[in-house]
Amino acid sequence: MYLRQTQELTHQAALVILQGAIAKAEAMGVPQCIAIVDTGGNLLAFIRMDGAKFLSQISATQKAITAMSSKAPTGGVAADVELKLALATAGQLTNLKGGLPIEINGQLVGAIGVGSGTGAQDVEVAQAGIAALQEKLG
Amino acid sequence: MYLRQTQELTHQAALVILQGAIAKAEAMGVPQCIAIVDTGGNLLAFIRMDGAKFLSQISATQKAITAMSSKAPTGGVAADVELKLALATAGQLTNLKGGLPIEINGQLVGAIGVGSGTGAQDVEVAQAGIAALQEKLG
Amino acid sequence: MYLRQTQELTHQAALVILQGAIAKAEAMGVPQCIAIVDTGGNLLAFIRMDGAKFLSQISATQKAITAMSSKAPTGGVAADVELKLALATAGQLTNLKGGLPIEINGQLVGAIGVGSGTGAQDVEVAQAGIAALQEKLG
Amino acid sequence: MYLRQTQELTHQAALVILQGAIAKAEAMGVPQCIAIVDTGGNLLAFIRMDGAKFLSQISATQKAITAMSSKAPTGGVAADVELKLALATAGQLTNLKGGLPIEINGQLVGAIGVGSGTGAQDVEVAQAGIAALQEKLG
Repeated sequence: MYLRQTQELTHQAALVILQGAIAKAEAMGVPQCIAIVDTGGNLLAFIRMDGAKFLSQISATQKAITAMSSKAPTGGVAADVELKLALATAGQLTNLKGGLPIEINGQLVGAIGVGSGTGAQDVEVAQAGIAALQEKLG
Repeated sequence: MYLRQTQELTHQAALVILQGAIAKAEAMGVPQCIAIVDTGGNLLAFIRMDGAKFLSQISATQKAITAMSSKAPTGGVAADVELKLALATAGQLTNLKGGLPIEINGQLVGAIGVGSGTGAQDVEVAQAGIAALQEKLG
Repeated sequence: MYLRQTQELTHQAALVILQGAIAKAEAMGVPQCIAIVDTGGNLLAFIRMDGAKFLSQISATQKAITAMSSKAPTGGVAADVELKLALATAGQLTNLKGGLPIEINGQLVGAIGVGSGTGAQDVEVAQAGIAALQEKLG
Repeated sequence: MYLRQTQELTHQAALVILQGAIAKAEAMGVPQCIAIVDTGGNLLAFIRMDGAKFLSQISATQKAITAMSSKAPTGGVAADVELKLALATAGQLTNLKGGLPIEINGQLVGAIGVGSGTGAQDVEVAQAGIAALQEKLG
């Protein structure tokens, strides 16, 4: 009643996710900024690949934070409130595609945000990062 | 694999670009704010011409930063994501026209942003700045 | 009684000051960030020389703003209030040496701030910038 | 005269540095936040190890940015100006130990900042990160 069990990604897990995402982005030929946050939305790991947009550091991180806060992939907020929500959160809540919650065994353990490609490319790279961790966990 | 070669503008090059842009703006009779950034988006040189809007200092600088980050002229972002991107980057990514990457011999060496006129006037002045450097380089 | 005459530096004057300061810094072998502001403290011109510290962009600009606001060279605030004043102005008022008001014929027309060297070097370069303009004015 | 040659770390180099620093911190039993920036001070890679202080994300990043801007290890600023410089750069210039420039073959290619341990521990981990890259380069 007073305490609840949670799980957090370790930094080794974060590195596995980063490397899976990087491998995918390299295969696609699309350099990316990749951010991983813990369940509190704090930055756990980040990489900016050669040639990725440096401003995407900010948006990739916000995608991860938004996916974590809302416990859902980014991009699903209704069009009539997306800018209001962005403004009301000082730009932190973004409706750009490319943020995904990271679920392991049905439990939310963090989130990943990817930015510098198209929305579809960003999502594909984020998925590859999560898949790399799931593969390690068997 | 671990290092990549890059090039940066010197401050003498930045002065040449500023002067080329100023000369064009004076000929057009449109005072401008002109900002030049290095490949990391850090301010290298700036001038606010007599009569230019002082708030354009901020937007001209953001145009240069955006052109550098995206390695493309500003203004080409799709209408359905331009505000989301601006908000997700704390206003840093702008879709206003007037920012141009500076390429020398096919390599990106910085960017210029111009603001205080119309979008078309801003672009014209930015182009004149880059042309002045290219003329010096022969 | 209701209006007072002021004078402002033109952008051509700002370029003369920049070039005088750059020439001095080059002769000293100390790369500098040099900022010039108008009487309202708004940025008029800026250059970051090759090899100058990029964080000095911020401090050089604050030195110029502080010199303009206080109508005096920076660095003269008493030690027991300097940090209180910096904190009370969100860091804008700095007591670092290197900011000088620009006076022409006894009238204040702007200010210059220089940073990336020692305090004494910064002051020397700022003085050279002002001297270059005074020489043009004869 | 108008262009100067520079070098940047690739993301593969940044991963090598991160892993070298993590291995050292694990061996010491001191979890750390580790940030790597490019020559423009933009974040290239980051990891927060299990148990590291989350506020150290900010200070580790500022140590890297400061080391890059000043082209020297952090912590060497004279006591009488360290707070003035911190305030005049909006907190960006820090005099905490734990930031080191990354030099390869005598050229500055980026910087690393480490935070969450003592200053001496932070420096030791930063050095291990740089050493890991130098070993790969032979």
